[in-house]
Amino acid sequence: MAAARGGYTRSLAGRGLFVSFEGIDGCGKTTQITLFLARLREMGIEPVRAQEPGGTPVGSLIRGVLLDSANANMDPRTELLLYFASRAQNVAEVIRPAVKAGKLVVSDRFTDSTVAYQGHGRHLGEDIVFRLEEIACDGIRPDLTLWLDLDPVKARSRVRSRTDRMEVGQDHMEVQPLEFFERVRRGYASIHRAEPSRVRRIDAEGPPEAIAESILRLVLPRISHLRKDLV
Amino acid sequence: MAAARGGYTRSLAGRGLFVSFEGIDGCGKTTQITLFLARLREMGIEPVRAQEPGGTPVGSLIRGVLLDSANANMDPRTELLLYFASRAQNVAEVIRPAVKAGKLVVSDRFTDSTVAYQGHGRHLGEDIVFRLEEIACDGIRPDLTLWLDLDPVKARSRVRSRTDRMEVGQDHMEVQPLEFFERVRRGYASIHRAEPSRVRRIDAEGPPEAIAESILRLVLPRISHLRKDLV
Repeated sequence: MAAARGGYTRSLAGRGLFVSFEGIDGCGKTTQITLFLARLREMGIEPVRAQEPGGTPVGSLIRGVLLDSANANMDPRTELLLYFASRAQNVAEVIRPAVKAGKLVVSDRFTDSTVAYQGHGRHLGEDIVFRLEEIACDGIRPDLTLWLDLDPVKARSRVRSRTDRMEVGQDHMEVQPLEFFERVRRGYASIHRAEPSRVRRIDAEGPPEAIAESILRLVLPRISHLRKDLV
Repeated sequence: MAAARGGYTRSLAGRGLFVSFEGIDGCGKTTQITLFLARLREMGIEPVRAQEPGGTPVGSLIRGVLLDSANANMDPRTELLLYFASRAQNVAEVIRPAVKAGKLVVSDRFTDSTVAYQGHGRHLGEDIVFRLEEIACDGIRPDLTLWLDLDPVKARSRVRSRTDRMEVGQDHMEVQPLEFFERVRRGYASIHRAEPSRVRRIDAEGPPEAIAESILRLVLPRISHLRKDLV
């Protein structure tokens, strides 16, 4: 696994910066991304947003296939390949061009989600995910990953109150048993242990504004070179 | 390449039989599959049909993404991953269970199409296709592949008269230049050279009934054991 993780030599350092947000459903990721983007804009930085799955016209169609509740019958390998199909399009169309152009890319999920959800959650293992990463991602891995870590029991209760409020059904992922999210969380912990300087653990309990501050403190030293380019 | 091709040890021999039809657009594949299925039914054999991309509810949604003409912007790797996503579902839901149950599976295209179209036609190379085959296909490769070989110039004129007749637009693949189909044909020739006993070349010029007879002569010795099980 260390070998698979170590295989990335094409660095984009010195150009833009690629930051991803990760965590189990209900960890507060969407709230934190919104707060983070607002603070960046206050600083005069206009980030490029990416989203997984989706984020491109082709990716949105793939997202539709993945989230279609009629597809409960989907094979885990099919699901895995669809996530990477969406990611390959995102890399080619959005992420690589933006980072090359010196921009700050902020992605809601990336390959780490697939390691955690499919590799650990669905028991496919990490190896198959890294083999697909090599094929699909053109050497792109985030420069910095913010893992919002929260106990699955607490995360679930947040998801439930959200779906009640929005009066929408729970999607494909959110109907998984609690054990599934415990495996996913262990997957994130495994990635964090393997790459502690890239993948930073953020305690996702507590008030959102305090969490947003700790995220900003982690990111600021890495984006100082971008500010003068982008103001 | 030989090594990649040789990696398949999980054989389904002695159970059912998995037959695929291959060839460039306009080679007469659909006509030949229809004639072949009719002859099998006359013999009391009820084959299981498979289709690529598609063939399952999830696969049909993926096919829709692939054929959407708005997706001219699709990255070649995204396309490649989508073909294998559909194939993984087909293997899990249709092909593996049917062959295991002793049935004859007849597939309109399979991995050889991806080697020819994406590997050769789109210049992605064969290696990436074989790496995905290992991930997606659970060791399944056709027992017999019927490659309907036709000059791309003749194939194109067949496609054109068909689309005129049906008053429909040409799809995604059919708008490719002639050189594309020449590369695809060379891809099929490469697969045929590497696995001559599995991949049989059928001359696709001449009257459809005569071609159907030569296909039947190739298949009959391999399905005699199925007939008594399936009548």
